[in-house]
Amino acid sequence: MMDTKQRISRFLQSIAFVTVMLAWHSDVHAQQSSHPNIIIFLIDDMGWEDTSVPFSGTVTTNNKKYHTPNMERLAKSGLKFTNAYAAPVCTPTRVSLITGMNVAHHHVTNWTSPLKDNNTDAPDSTLSAADWNINGFSPVPGVDKTVHATALPQLLKDAGYFTIHVGKAHWGPQGTPGANPYNVGFIVNISGHAAGHPQSYLSEDNYGNLPGKNSAQSVPDLEQYYQSGTFLTEALTQEAIRSLEYPVSKKQPFFLNFGHYAVHVPLMADKRYYQHYLDKGLDSAEAKYASLIEGMDKSLGDVLNFVEKKGIKNNTVILFLSDNGGLALAPPRGGEPFTQNAPLRAGKGSVYEGGIRVPFIIQYPLLIKAGGITDNPVIVEDIFPAILELAGIRNYHSIQKTDGKSFVPVLKNPALTDTSRLLLWHYPNNWQAKTIPGTNYFSALRKGRWKLIYNQRNNTTELYDLSKDLGEEKNVATVFPAKTKELLNLLGRQLKDYNAPMPVDKKTAKPLPYPGDNSN
Amino acid sequence: MMDTKQRISRFLQSIAFVTVMLAWHSDVHAQQSSHPNIIIFLIDDMGWEDTSVPFSGTVTTNNKKYHTPNMERLAKSGLKFTNAYAAPVCTPTRVSLITGMNVAHHHVTNWTSPLKDNNTDAPDSTLSAADWNINGFSPVPGVDKTVHATALPQLLKDAGYFTIHVGKAHWGPQGTPGANPYNVGFIVNISGHAAGHPQSYLSEDNYGNLPGKNSAQSVPDLEQYYQSGTFLTEALTQEAIRSLEYPVSKKQPFFLNFGHYAVHVPLMADKRYYQHYLDKGLDSAEAKYASLIEGMDKSLGDVLNFVEKKGIKNNTVILFLSDNGGLALAPPRGGEPFTQNAPLRAGKGSVYEGGIRVPFIIQYPLLIKAGGITDNPVIVEDIFPAILELAGIRNYHSIQKTDGKSFVPVLKNPALTDTSRLLLWHYPNNWQAKTIPGTNYFSALRKGRWKLIYNQRNNTTELYDLSKDLGEEKNVATVFPAKTKELLNLLGRQLKDYNAPMPVDKKTAKPLPYPGDNSN
Repeated sequence: MMDTKQRISRFLQSIAFVTVMLAWHSDVHAQQSSHPNIIIFLIDDMGWEDTSVPFSGTVTTNNKKYHTPNMERLAKSGLKFTNAYAAPVCTPTRVSLITGMNVAHHHVTNWTSPLKDNNTDAPDSTLSAADWNINGFSPVPGVDKTVHATALPQLLKDAGYFTIHVGKAHWGPQGTPGANPYNVGFIVNISGHAAGHPQSYLSEDNYGNLPGKNSAQSVPDLEQYYQSGTFLTEALTQEAIRSLEYPVSKKQPFFLNFGHYAVHVPLMADKRYYQHYLDKGLDSAEAKYASLIEGMDKSLGDVLNFVEKKGIKNNTVILFLSDNGGLALAPPRGGEPFTQNAPLRAGKGSVYEGGIRVPFIIQYPLLIKAGGITDNPVIVEDIFPAILELAGIRNYHSIQKTDGKSFVPVLKNPALTDTSRLLLWHYPNNWQAKTIPGTNYFSALRKGRWKLIYNQRNNTTELYDLSKDLGEEKNVATVFPAKTKELLNLLGRQLKDYNAPMPVDKKTAKPLPYPGDNSN
Repeated sequence: MMDTKQRISRFLQSIAFVTVMLAWHSDVHAQQSSHPNIIIFLIDDMGWEDTSVPFSGTVTTNNKKYHTPNMERLAKSGLKFTNAYAAPVCTPTRVSLITGMNVAHHHVTNWTSPLKDNNTDAPDSTLSAADWNINGFSPVPGVDKTVHATALPQLLKDAGYFTIHVGKAHWGPQGTPGANPYNVGFIVNISGHAAGHPQSYLSEDNYGNLPGKNSAQSVPDLEQYYQSGTFLTEALTQEAIRSLEYPVSKKQPFFLNFGHYAVHVPLMADKRYYQHYLDKGLDSAEAKYASLIEGMDKSLGDVLNFVEKKGIKNNTVILFLSDNGGLALAPPRGGEPFTQNAPLRAGKGSVYEGGIRVPFIIQYPLLIKAGGITDNPVIVEDIFPAILELAGIRNYHSIQKTDGKSFVPVLKNPALTDTSRLLLWHYPNNWQAKTIPGTNYFSALRKGRWKLIYNQRNNTTELYDLSKDLGEEKNVATVFPAKTKELLNLLGRQLKDYNAPMPVDKKTAKPLPYPGDNSN
């Protein structure tokens, strides 16, 4: 028998325990409601209007060409951003997304080779390559020619998220830690590696893994689908959905970074949809492209269905975007070159709108009113702080100073528009050794309706009023010289602050000066 | 203000809540202490005595040849099994391990090709291939020529384990679900796929992924180590340890299935250890083999260090074993063929002890007294029920009827010995189109000290008394005809019960009959 003292002691212990348990329980509960699931659905090389969802305000020829019912469904229940931007090529966008840094700041200004220490810049007669981070992103310090930063998936994982990467990664070359999504903060990785495109979309080709025929672009991890007739887009979708089952069954918040290899070249027909586009009269290249788009849209639908079936739609943030503008080279695309992103000018690789403006839709029923549209300009590095805010992650430590600005206020009120924000693009590189409008050694700055284009090679500027001239056809630099000068100085100052790499003059062996009233 | 009724109602709600929380808390606590972490450290083609840990009772020439300080450390703090068995080749062992089924029962009697529907049996002049499950294990029904069963990792995952596969998998060919560890119940998979050996251990070869030089044996998922000088064994170890950090940090019980590609051919020097063995006077092939062994042992040490550093040693079950006997073909091994597993006879592929007896050590400080030895015979399918028992998983549902017997009582009392247990091996296949003792169309049965060898081709038997004749040199079938007959009948009856596949007589086109008094 216990004596009275013991009984009192036991009783007090019970009270203390119950108090602790109650406090702990409410903490868990608070966590659960503030940790929504997050899905990034990132398409490769998809143009702004390569969808039946109109982003330009009117239904364009492109909108009529493509069939994307699931993007329509997403836009209907989410918020459509008409002025969303990425970098002109893929690795810079992908590094900005996971670091929150502007491209001019992280210095991964061009796409990274699958091979280490390999500069992908095309040769030029008068300029040498800028001193950019040719080895991409690194989660650890001390790797030459990388930006060492704290990655978004790592912060989410540290906060209790179950982090999954599926599909294209392309953060760093083979032989560097950034090649492996496991080092970037992902618990699961399926098919992400150093390469920026697939060798093949076809299971008949084992996705590029036929014996003796592999390359750095052979898609890993899909052996079970070899020779099964499953198109790459579909195989990745099945893998993504399977990988979600674990955290969903455990009621653990998840982050799925779903990077489709589609719709990057090689353009290969997704047979489920190809014939339909031939029947519509598209040439074979464009029919292949459209079939890649519709296969990707079917994947989106499967993910939306999964989320709905599991009853987690309301508490799941889904971000849909492309990593740069649509490819506008012909061939491999059909039609006239540089026209594929109409009404925008040029395409992938360019700082004209066709290269950088991307489709962007967010669904998050708990916060976002269905069917909204916002014209507020956002850029890919904004996703980093926005996701951390949505995930309730505060006071996190990141190695880098981030440049992005959270768009969560816009989610709550799509009418908000920030006309003072500076959006900056910097491409001190040679993407293709041919002339493409706005590509190769260009920078650009957007502030409100004004868009400045800066040609680094010859130190010339163009100014466009996007509110009247979405197609950037009418250069008004001489009409508004003060505005041009103001923006040029802002651009030069920001590049200087970022210590942004510049191409090197072969004659002087020195980097070109920053524009405006800043000199090197 | 609340009225009295409301107050009482609130009070009752609180009590109910506290009761629920207390019940839940104790449940969680009970779960935690009954869910130890589990690590299977599975070596490929390592012989019984290819270690400085003596398994035979005396220190053999082989024990002196190899340097495995971490296996010594494991044996010192765990329990050493001197009579542990696997199948004569790898896929059968691996399927038995995850299904708890005997090989004669699951019908995956030979190693599976990386290619679907491909029978790996070597051709024979008088016998056609048995009707075995050439497509290996399948986690889903309806896949031709597979055994459909519930996999151990799936049961562990369903019970809340964080399940990780690293290294060799080899449960099924490309184009089947079993090719992918994600379908076998693993949350994380690193480098496991359809292949049974690596194209290369060298980062200089990108582990078999050099462009244009790949094969089905190219090791996936290790791009970050390409050209880094990291030997495959080391790269897998670093990946395994990194992958453990997540569940450890979350205090989630984990299951790590660490399947080393070592020490399977191609024999390649692990440079960290190679010179030492050359200096000791080993020929180059044996020095390479010994360097593979020591590299594997270093990996074990790293895992042991990790577990100790994290303070989870006591609550972690570590099982160390090989998947079959050591390769005894020369070349590629050095020395005289079929002698490499001395004092045991023959080697990989054979039902003689050299092909099936494997090193087996278990460390689990909470349950197992340090430094123990048990002579109780166990076979690889016993791991399935033993792990489920250790993990506290009862009343699970599995599609298959399991054959394994839990050895948990032996962990508690190593002196226990079951002399009535029947251990059965069945290899109705042609491994190599040459004569190797006890290989190609053989079965075997062990009961207590007696070992029966059955040659399916010519219906002949041998009997050995393992208590006196570990090397199976003296066939006593004619000395003990009644024992021979008894065991032969037991073997035949069991094969019949399992509906075990038998090789087909080319003349009659019928399967050979089961031995003993059973006819087809």
